[in-house]
Amino acid sequence: MRVPPGVTPKDFSDAIEQWQEALGHEWVFTSDEDVDLYRDSYSPFWHEDIEPVPSSAVAPADVEQVVAAVKIANTYKIPLWTISTGKNLGYGGSAPLLGGSVVLDLKRMDRILEVNDKNHYALVEPGVSYFDLYRYIQDQGLKVWIDVPDPGWGSLIGNALDRGGGYTPLRDHFDAHCGMEVVLADGEIVRTGMGALPGSHTWQQYRYGFGPYVDGMFSQGNFGVVTKMGFWLLPEPEGFKSGTVAVRRHDDLVPLVETLNYLMNSNLVQGTTTIGSPLLASGAVRSATGGGAALVATPGGPSVEELEEIGRDQNLPYWNCQMNFYGPPKVVEAEWECAKEKYSKISGATFVEGPTYQLPYDPKDVDKLPKRQFGIPSLTIFGLMGRSEGHMWFSPIIPMTGEAVFEAQRVFGQAYHDMGVPAINQIFVFPSSFFPRSFVILCGFPIYHDVEKNRRSREVFRGLVKAAAEHGWGEYRTHTAFMDTVSDVYSFNNHALRHFHETIKDAVDPNGILSPGRCGVWPKGLRKAHA
Amino acid sequence: MRVPPGVTPKDFSDAIEQWQEALGHEWVFTSDEDVDLYRDSYSPFWHEDIEPVPSSAVAPADVEQVVAAVKIANTYKIPLWTISTGKNLGYGGSAPLLGGSVVLDLKRMDRILEVNDKNHYALVEPGVSYFDLYRYIQDQGLKVWIDVPDPGWGSLIGNALDRGGGYTPLRDHFDAHCGMEVVLADGEIVRTGMGALPGSHTWQQYRYGFGPYVDGMFSQGNFGVVTKMGFWLLPEPEGFKSGTVAVRRHDDLVPLVETLNYLMNSNLVQGTTTIGSPLLASGAVRSATGGGAALVATPGGPSVEELEEIGRDQNLPYWNCQMNFYGPPKVVEAEWECAKEKYSKISGATFVEGPTYQLPYDPKDVDKLPKRQFGIPSLTIFGLMGRSEGHMWFSPIIPMTGEAVFEAQRVFGQAYHDMGVPAINQIFVFPSSFFPRSFVILCGFPIYHDVEKNRRSREVFRGLVKAAAEHGWGEYRTHTAFMDTVSDVYSFNNHALRHFHETIKDAVDPNGILSPGRCGVWPKGLRKAHA
Repeated sequence: MRVPPGVTPKDFSDAIEQWQEALGHEWVFTSDEDVDLYRDSYSPFWHEDIEPVPSSAVAPADVEQVVAAVKIANTYKIPLWTISTGKNLGYGGSAPLLGGSVVLDLKRMDRILEVNDKNHYALVEPGVSYFDLYRYIQDQGLKVWIDVPDPGWGSLIGNALDRGGGYTPLRDHFDAHCGMEVVLADGEIVRTGMGALPGSHTWQQYRYGFGPYVDGMFSQGNFGVVTKMGFWLLPEPEGFKSGTVAVRRHDDLVPLVETLNYLMNSNLVQGTTTIGSPLLASGAVRSATGGGAALVATPGGPSVEELEEIGRDQNLPYWNCQMNFYGPPKVVEAEWECAKEKYSKISGATFVEGPTYQLPYDPKDVDKLPKRQFGIPSLTIFGLMGRSEGHMWFSPIIPMTGEAVFEAQRVFGQAYHDMGVPAINQIFVFPSSFFPRSFVILCGFPIYHDVEKNRRSREVFRGLVKAAAEHGWGEYRTHTAFMDTVSDVYSFNNHALRHFHETIKDAVDPNGILSPGRCGVWPKGLRKAHA
Repeated sequence: MRVPPGVTPKDFSDAIEQWQEALGHEWVFTSDEDVDLYRDSYSPFWHEDIEPVPSSAVAPADVEQVVAAVKIANTYKIPLWTISTGKNLGYGGSAPLLGGSVVLDLKRMDRILEVNDKNHYALVEPGVSYFDLYRYIQDQGLKVWIDVPDPGWGSLIGNALDRGGGYTPLRDHFDAHCGMEVVLADGEIVRTGMGALPGSHTWQQYRYGFGPYVDGMFSQGNFGVVTKMGFWLLPEPEGFKSGTVAVRRHDDLVPLVETLNYLMNSNLVQGTTTIGSPLLASGAVRSATGGGAALVATPGGPSVEELEEIGRDQNLPYWNCQMNFYGPPKVVEAEWECAKEKYSKISGATFVEGPTYQLPYDPKDVDKLPKRQFGIPSLTIFGLMGRSEGHMWFSPIIPMTGEAVFEAQRVFGQAYHDMGVPAINQIFVFPSSFFPRSFVILCGFPIYHDVEKNRRSREVFRGLVKAAAEHGWGEYRTHTAFMDTVSDVYSFNNHALRHFHETIKDAVDPNGILSPGRCGVWPKGLRKAHA
C-alpha cells in the first residue's frame, strides 16, 4: 500500500481503519487497482516516476461523512485532494498535485437539492454533473436553462470552483454561483452568504450575506471542502438567434473587436463569442504557412499583404465573429439589426444570419441544435484531438482588443520560434469571450505515451507561461503540473498575494491537509520544498 | 487630547509625532474641533456618552503614506477606522464603531487613474466621488456611463466596499468592480486579480487572477485598506425607455413579481425596478390607515377587500412596477413590447409608457432626465426626510416573490405592533431590486437630537432585526451601531462563519488595528467585550 508523504505506515493504517468505520469499508479505496483509476488519464508524466499518484481514496456519502473524513485526516495530518466528479481533464483530472495524497472523492454526493424555475436557481451537491441537472430539469419540465462547458460530464461545483466557463449569458460559472456550504479543515461546517442565517429564505437569491464575503477564497483554493453550492439559472428563453460578421482586411480586427466590446458590454450580444479567420483556416493558406500554425507570424511565410491578396482572390474574409442573441424573437431580431448597423461602419463588412429559433425546443430535435449555446451537455468535444492520447490547456487571458490579439500572435510565435518548435506544432487558437470583458486563448497541448515528447511539451508550456507574463498576460487556470509555474508569475510586490494566501492557509488549515499545492498555495511544512 | 482605548498617552503622542513626520503636520488632526468633523452627523447616539467619537484622524496623500500610517498604527497597536470620503450617512458616516479609533481618512487620494471607453472601465482611488468621476467623463467626452447611488457625493470605492447599489444595469457596485490594491495591516501592498501579475494588461478586464479570489474579503470587512479599485462601466447607451405596469388586485402582486423575475433574469429589463402602490399611497387610503404605515396590516384598518373596493371606485391600481430598458431605441421598444405581452396575462393589467430617449443626451438637459437611471450623480435624496435630523436604514433582503412581500408586511407590522409603535410611526417601504434576484426593503429610521426618541428607535431597530431573522431574512448592510446585532443573527452552526472571519482576522491583522468591529468582526483582544 502506498503511504502519503510524512505519514507513518502505522498512522496511515489507523486512519484507513477509521475512515472505513466512518464511511463503510467499500468507500475507502486502497488497492492499487482501485486507486489507479484516480490517476490523470491525460497526465503529462506518463511512464515517469514523478507522476503524482494518490495513495488511496475515500468517498463520503454526505456532509457528515465529509466532516468525519476531514477530521480523521486532520488528526493524522494526512493530505487530502478533493475532487467532485474528477473529470477535470486537461487540468489534472482526478489526480492530486502532491503524490501520495488521499483523494477525497465527492461524486457520491449527487443530490439535486432544489431547482426553482420562478426565481431561477439550483442548489446541488458536488457529485451532480451537468448531465444530471439537465436531465432532472427535462424530466420535471422546468423552465430553466443551465450553462455547460464542454464536455458535460463534469461537476457544476467542480467546474465553478475551477472558474470554468461556458457559452450562454451565465457562462462565467463561478460568477453565477450564489451561496456555499463548506467544510473547513477542522471539520466545522460553514454556510456563506445568506446561508449563514439559520432558516434563510434567500441563500440562492442574494450572494453576499453580511460581513466579509468569502466565497471567492474557495475557488481555485484549498481553504475548505465545498459540499453544497447554489447556481443562478437562465429562464428558458423564448427565442435564440446567431449571426456572423466577417471583415476583409487584417487591420479590420481592431474595429471588429471594439464593436464587439460595445455590443457585449451593453448586453446586446450575450454568451460566448469567438473570433475566427476563414482566410487563415483555408486550405490555400494552411499549406502556405505550415498548417496548424496559421495564425502565428511564420518567418518566411506569406506577409499580411499577400494573405489579404489571397483573401481577395478567393473571397475569404480575414476575420469573422459569431454572436449569439437570447430573448423573444422580436428582441433578438432588433439586437441583430443593431449589431449589423454597428459593424457596417467597417467597410466591406458582410453578414451571415443564422435562423431565429422559437423556443422551447422539442427534445427530439436536440441533435440539430447548437448544443453549447442552448446549455445542452454533450461529449462532442472529445472528437477534437484525434491523434494524441490526451491534452492539457495553456489558457492565457489577454485584453479584448484587436491590438492585443496581434501582439499575442507575435509574442507566442516568437516564443515558439525561440524554443525551436516547428511551425506545424505551433498552436495558437482564436480568442474567445468565455469571461466578460477579456479574451481567453485556449491552446490545447497534446499528451502522448512518450516520455520525451511530454518532457518537451512541458518545457514549451513553461516557456509560453513565461513569455506571456513578460507581456503582462497570465493564465486563468492551469494543469496541476504547472500550478507552481503559473503562480510564480503572479509575483507583484515580491509575491504579496501569495503570501496573503499562505497566511490564511496556515490559519485555517494549520496541518496543511487540504489539497496541498493547489494553485500555488502550499501549507507551511511543504512551502520551502516547492519554492 | 482623546486617546484610543488600550493605548498609553505616551505611545499615542509618539505615534502622532511619527504620523506628522510621515504625512505632514497639517494632515494629522488632533484638536477636538477638527476631529469632531468626523463624528456621525446622523448618529443615533446624539447627546449620549456612548457615542463613538474618534480620537484623531490622519489623511495620507498616497499609497506610500497609507503604508507608513498603517505601520505606525501597527507598532503602537492603535485602532484605525478607514473611510474613503466618509459620506456613508445612514450607516455611520465617517465615525468609527469603536470610540477612540483614529480615522484613516483617504479622501485626499482622489486620483482618477484611468478611464477607458473602449473596454469600458475605470481605475480610481478611494477619495474619488461619483461627482468627480462623472465630471471627468463629461469633460473628456468619454462614451461611458457610471452607476450612482443616492446621493452622489460618496466614494465609488467606499460604496462598493459597503456593497451599495444603484440604478443602472451595473447597479451592484461590488459586483461591478474588477481588481483591487490593498494595504495589509503589516503595511504590505497586495494587488488582487490580474494585478498580481507585474505589468498586467488586464487588471480591470478579468476579475479573478490565479488562485483563491480574495476581493470579497475586503468588502464589509476589516482585513485591509483598499487603495485602488477598478470598476466596469456601461458603454453609453443609444437609447433608454421606462414603462410602468399596474395591476388591480392585492393578489396580483404574485404574478406581477413572477413576471418581473422572468424579465429581469432574462436581461430584458435591466437596472433597479421598484414595486409601488398607487392605491396605498393615495390620500384616501393613507387617511384610513394612519399614514406612513399604509402597506402594513393595520389592526382595525380597512381589509384587503375594502382596499380593493376603494381602488375600483377611485380607479387606483393596487400595485405597479416601473421598469427600465437600456439600448438602441429599436431594442428597447421590442423589450417593452415583450414585457407588456407577458404582463397582459394578468387580467386588468394596464400600462403607462415613458418616452424613448435617443442618446447621448445634451448636458444642458440634465435636470429634465431621470438622473439615477442615467448614472448622473445628485443630492436630491436629501429632500426626503424633512422633519428629522437624519436617518439610518433598516435594510433586510427578502425573496423576490409576491408572497414574501405579503409575509414581510405581516411580520414587520406585527413586530411594530408588539413593540407598541403607533401606526403613524411604522415604516415599510416598497421592495426594490437594487441587487439581482432578490428584493431589498429600505426602511429609513429618523434620527433626532432627542436622547429618548433615539433610544426608542434603536430598540425598535433591534426588534426588527430579530423579527426578520426569525423569518429567515437578514440585513444586507447596517449602521455601525447595529453591526453586532446584525452579525449575531447570521449564526448558522454556532456562528461558524464569524469564527472563520475571526480566524482570518487574527492571522492577517494580529494586533487588531484595522476597523475593529466592522460588520461584527472583532480582533482577539476585543472579542469578549462585544460577545
